[in-house]
Amino acid sequence: MEKLINYIHTVEHALNHLNVPVYPKTLYQPITYTLGLGGKRIRPALLLLANDLFSGRQENALSAALAVEVFHNFTLIHDDVMDDAPLRRGKETVYKKWGINTAILSGDVMFVKSVDLLAKSPEDKLPELIHLFTKTAFEVCEGQQYDMDFEQKTDVSIDDYLKMIELKTAVLLAASLQLGAIIGGAGKEDQQHIYEFGKNLGLAFQLMDDVLDLYGNPEKFGKRVGGDIIANKKTYLLLKAKELATGELKKELEFCLTSKALKDDQKIEKVKSIFNRMNIQKLATAEMDLFYNTALSHLDSINAPKEKKHVFEVFAKSLMNRDN
Amino acid sequence: MEKLINYIHTVEHALNHLNVPVYPKTLYQPITYTLGLGGKRIRPALLLLANDLFSGRQENALSAALAVEVFHNFTLIHDDVMDDAPLRRGKETVYKKWGINTAILSGDVMFVKSVDLLAKSPEDKLPELIHLFTKTAFEVCEGQQYDMDFEQKTDVSIDDYLKMIELKTAVLLAASLQLGAIIGGAGKEDQQHIYEFGKNLGLAFQLMDDVLDLYGNPEKFGKRVGGDIIANKKTYLLLKAKELATGELKKELEFCLTSKALKDDQKIEKVKSIFNRMNIQKLATAEMDLFYNTALSHLDSINAPKEKKHVFEVFAKSLMNRDN
Repeated sequence: MEKLINYIHTVEHALNHLNVPVYPKTLYQPITYTLGLGGKRIRPALLLLANDLFSGRQENALSAALAVEVFHNFTLIHDDVMDDAPLRRGKETVYKKWGINTAILSGDVMFVKSVDLLAKSPEDKLPELIHLFTKTAFEVCEGQQYDMDFEQKTDVSIDDYLKMIELKTAVLLAASLQLGAIIGGAGKEDQQHIYEFGKNLGLAFQLMDDVLDLYGNPEKFGKRVGGDIIANKKTYLLLKAKELATGELKKELEFCLTSKALKDDQKIEKVKSIFNRMNIQKLATAEMDLFYNTALSHLDSINAPKEKKHVFEVFAKSLMNRDN
Repeated sequence: MEKLINYIHTVEHALNHLNVPVYPKTLYQPITYTLGLGGKRIRPALLLLANDLFSGRQENALSAALAVEVFHNFTLIHDDVMDDAPLRRGKETVYKKWGINTAILSGDVMFVKSVDLLAKSPEDKLPELIHLFTKTAFEVCEGQQYDMDFEQKTDVSIDDYLKMIELKTAVLLAASLQLGAIIGGAGKEDQQHIYEFGKNLGLAFQLMDDVLDLYGNPEKFGKRVGGDIIANKKTYLLLKAKELATGELKKELEFCLTSKALKDDQKIEKVKSIFNRMNIQKLATAEMDLFYNTALSHLDSINAPKEKKHVFEVFAKSLMNRDN
C-alpha cells in the first residue's frame, strides 16, 4: 500500500499547485475551495498506479490523474445542487455557500479544466484517452439522471439499481484505472481487465455501503445506522426485500414505508426485522462477494508481474474492510 | 454568400442526424429539443468556411463544426438558468420546461458531447484544437461570470464592458474560425488573423446590438425599442453616458435610472434625450466602426486568394447590415 499512499500524496501536492486563474474570483474561488475540502484521491492515485503497473512514467500520467479528480469534483458540485445538499465533507457545499448560479458556472469551468488537463497527456494517446473520458462522462451523467428518476419511480428493479450505481460511481473508478493503463502502454485486453477490476470493485463497494448503513458498526462507519431506511432510500436491501416479499411481509413492509405514525427508531427496527426474516443481508453480501471476486479474477488475468499486481489486491481488500 | 448558406444547410442537416442517445429520456430529450429550436448556425458554418479558405476537406472539419454549435447550445441552457430566462427563440427554455436539475445535467451532457465531437477531428490536429477549445470555454464561462457580476457592480468601466462581451460572445466566433483554419492547415499567423477577424467582428456586432436596441427600426429589429433602458442594462450606451456625464446631465441620468415614478415610455424618452445631447450614438458607432475595420484589416492580412476571402467580407457586411 505504500506505493498507493505515495501516489495519494503526489496527487494532493499537485492539486495544491494546480494552475487555477484568480479572476473573476466569483468563478474561480469555489474551485480552490472544493479541491481544498479534501477527499481520498483514490481515483487519481489508482490511475497513477495502473500506469506504473505497465511501467509507464509518472510524469506522463499525472495530468490525466488530476483531470479525473477535477472531473469528479465538478460532478459533486453539480450533484449537490440537484440533490439540494447543504454539506459536503462537513463543510458547506458550493451551492449553499455561493448560490446556484455560482455552483453551475464554477462546476462548468471545472469540467473545462478537467478536459484541459487530460489534453496535456502524451499526444499519441490523446484520441484513446479522450474517447474513454467522454464515454465515462456520458455514463456518469446518465447515472445521476437515473438516480434522480428513481426517486419518483415506484418500480425500480434490482437490475435498474445495479445499472444506476455502475454508471454513477463504478465506471469512473474503472475508467481511471484504464486511463492509467493506456498511458502506461497496456494492450487492449489488459485495459479491459483493469477496467472490469475497477468496475466490479466499485459495485462491490457500493453494495457494502448499502449493507453497512444498516448493519455496520456505527462508531467505525461514522454515520447514523439506518439513515437509508428513514429516507426510504431505494438501496439494494430495500429493493431486494420489495422484490421478494409476499403476503403479510409485503403488507408489513408497505406499511413501514408509508406510515407517518412510526418514529424513526421504530421504523428502522421494524424494517430491519423484516429484512432479517427475509435474509436480505445475506443476499446482499452474496451479490457483493460476486462482484468482489469478479474484480479479483480480472486482476488475476492482467498480464503483469504478480508482485506488481499485489498492491491492487491489498487495496481491494482494504476498501472492503477485509484487511484484518 | 452561397457557400456560407450551403454550409449552414450542411450543419443543420448534420445536427438533425446527430447521434444522441435515447435513454434516459429525461437527460437526452432536452438536447434534441434545444438543437431543434433553431439558431443561425453561423459559428459552425464559419468554421467550415475557414477550413475551406485554406483548402481543407469538409469531412475533416464537420465534427469540429458540430462541436462548436453543441457547445454554444450548452452555454445557452445553463445561461438561461442563471439569467432566469423563460423563453429562448420564442419557445420555453429547458429550465422552464423541465426544471433546474434537468437544465444543469442536460447542459453538462451537451458539453460532454461537444468534447466528444471535437475529438473526432483529425488526430494530428487534436492537441491544438483541444487547447483552443478549452481556452475559449474558460473565457466564455468568465464572460458569463463578469456579466452576472456587473449586474451588482456600480462602477463598470467601458473597458470592463468590452472585455466582458469579448469573452462572453466574441471569442467563440473567433475560435470557430481559428478551429476551421487549424483543420484546413493554416499557418500560425493566418490562424491569428482569422481569429482577430472573428473577435473584432463579434465585438462590432455586439456594439451594433446595443445601438439598435434604442436606435433601430423596431419592425426590422424585431424587439421592443429601448428594452435595455427599461432593464437598466449596462450597455455600451449607458456606460459611455455615465462615464462622460457631469453636472446636470449626470443628475438627470441618475434620476432616470433610479426613479420609480417614471413610466417605461417616459424613461426611454428621457434617457434617449440625454444620450442624444451627449452624442452617445455617434461615439458608440465610432467604436463599432473601429472594431469592424480592424476585423476587415485582419481579413486582408490573411495569406489566401482574394476571391476566396471575399465571402468573409460579404458576410461581415451583411452581419452589420451594410449590404445595402
